Amino acid sequence: MLLINGQPCDSVSALDRGLSYGDGLFETIRFEQGKAPLWSRHMQRLATGCERLGMPAPDAALIWQEAQQVTDKLAQCVLRITLTRGLGERGYAPPIQVSPTRIVVAFPMPVVSRTLYLEGVRLHRCHTTLADQPLLAGIKHLNRLEQVLARAEWSDPAISEGLVCDSHGNVISATAANLFAVIDGVLVTPSVDRCGVAGVARAAILEAFPNCQVRDVALDEGVRAAELFLSSSVRGILPVQAVGDTVYAPGPVVRAMQQHWRDLGFAMEQA
Amino acid sequence: MLLINGQPCDSVSALDRGLSYGDGLFETIRFEQGKAPLWSRHMQRLATGCERLGMPAPDAALIWQEAQQVTDKLAQCVLRITLTRGLGERGYAPPIQVSPTRIVVAFPMPVVSRTLYLEGVRLHRCHTTLADQPLLAGIKHLNRLEQVLARAEWSDPAISEGLVCDSHGNVISATAANLFAVIDGVLVTPSVDRCGVAGVARAAILEAFPNCQVRDVALDEGVRAAELFLSSSVRGILPVQAVGDTVYAPGPVVRAMQQHWRDLGFAMEQA
Repeated sequence: MLLINGQPCDSVSALDRGLSYGDGLFETIRFEQGKAPLWSRHMQRLATGCERLGMPAPDAALIWQEAQQVTDKLAQCVLRITLTRGLGERGYAPPIQVSPTRIVVAFPMPVVSRTLYLEGVRLHRCHTTLADQPLLAGIKHLNRLEQVLARAEWSDPAISEGLVCDSHGNVISATAANLFAVIDGVLVTPSVDRCGVAGVARAAILEAFPNCQVRDVALDEGVRAAELFLSSSVRGILPVQAVGDTVYAPGPVVRAMQQHWRDLGFAMEQA
Repeated sequence: MLLINGQPCDSVSALDRGLSYGDGLFETIRFEQGKAPLWSRHMQRLATGCERLGMPAPDAALIWQEAQQVTDKLAQCVLRITLTRGLGERGYAPPIQVSPTRIVVAFPMPVVSRTLYLEGVRLHRCHTTLADQPLLAGIKHLNRLEQVLARAEWSDPAISEGLVCDSHGNVISATAANLFAVIDGVLVTPSVDRCGVAGVARAAILEAFPNCQVRDVALDEGVRAAELFLSSSVRGILPVQAVGDTVYAPGPVVRAMQQHWRDLGFAMEQA
C-alpha cells in the first residue's frame, strides 16, 4: 500500500521537484509487529534534513498515522518515507510557498540469511568515491547517484555490500550501511561530516557505546582492523567476513553489538 | 502538454528511481518556431550521460517526434526531457533489465528583458560550493541539490544568477548557466571535469571560438576579468553587469558572442 499526502495513490506529478532535482529526503524504517524501535531517531534525522534543505518540518504524528495504515497486518516490513519540496516552477529556485509531497509506502522485509549474521558478509572494494559536500553530508537526501554507481560495480550475489571511500582515501561506509571497526582494541566509526549518511542504527550504537571513536579512518587502517561490521536500520548488525581477499572472523565486539541490536527490539536475528 | 513514454500523462510511479535516487538525466532545450538549433548537442550530452550512468542510450528520433508533438503550435518554448532508470526494486542496485522512463514536457519560454541582454545581469556570490565528483561532472543528471541550495541563497529579483565556486576557490559557473571571462585579452571558461555541467551553449561557443581556454580559474582572477558573461541554451548570452559590488561593462567579446548566438538561429535577442 502506498499513500501520497495521505491518499491511496501510486503516482506523483511528473513536475515534482523530487523527480526534477532530487530535491527532498527519505527514510527507510524497519517495522516488526507494528513497532519501529528506531522511529524517533528516523524522525529526528528527517527534521534535521528539512532544516538543512530549508524545507518545512514534517508532522511526525501524521507520518506515524500513515505508517500504521500502510504497515497494518504486516508482521515485518520496511517503510519508506519520501518527502520532497513538492511542485515548483521550472528552475532551481525553491518555491516561496512550499507544499511538500509525502510518500509513505511499505516494502517487504529483505531476506538476510542467518548465515550472514553468523559468519558475516563479503564486501567489494568500490572504485566510486564519495565527494566532500559538508552541506549535504549526514542527511538522507534524494541525490543518491554516487551510491547507485558504487552499487553497480558488482553483480555477484555472493557479495552483499561495497566498501566506499572518500576522495582522500578514507573509508566511509558501505553503499547502504554504516561501518564500524575495532582498531587496536578501540571501537571506531568513520566521521560523516563531509560525506556519507549518519545512519540511525549508527546513532543508536554511538549512544549505547559512548567510547566509540568517530574520526577519519584511512583505508589501510580500516582494512587492518581486528573486527569490521556494518550497521543498518533495516538489516541490523552484520559482521564483515571479507573485503576483497582480506578475511575477518566475527569477534566479541560485533557479537555484543548484535546482542544490543536484539535488545532494542529487533528480535529475529539470532546470530 | 506532457508525454510519459509517449503517452499523454502527467504523473510517474512513486517508485521510479528518478524520484527515489535522482537516478537519471535531463535536458532543457529551447524551441523557436518548431526548431531547436542545438538539438544534436543536447542529444549528444544525453547519450554521454547515459553511458556514464550505465543506462541504455535513448532513441533520439523517437524523442524528436515527441518533442514535435508537445511543442506543436508554440512559437517559443523550453522543452524538458527527463530520462530515468525507470522502476526498480527498493535499494541502490540498478535493475538488470532497465525500462527507462522518458518524460517530455514543454514549458513557457522564460521572459528575459532586453535590458538584461544589453546591460547585463547581476550575480550573487554563492557560499554553496560544488563538490568534486569527476564521475558525475559535466553531465546533466538529476542530483541537483547543490544548485537548489545555491539558488536558495538569494531572493532579490534584481539578481538574476549566482556565481558558484568549487571547494578549492575556483569559479565554476552560475547556478544554471556556464561562465566565460576575458582575462588579459584571452577568452576563458572554467573546466567542468570535476564539477559543474558542460552546457550545450558552452560547447557551441567552444567550437566556434577554438582559441578559448578551458582551465581552472581562481575566483580572484575571474572577478578581475575585463568581461564576464553567461551562456545558457535557454537564455542565450548574458553579459554580467555585477558580481556583488564589482561592476562590469559589456565589452566587444560578449557582443561578438551575442551575434554568434543570433547567427545560430536564436534571433530574438537583439541586444
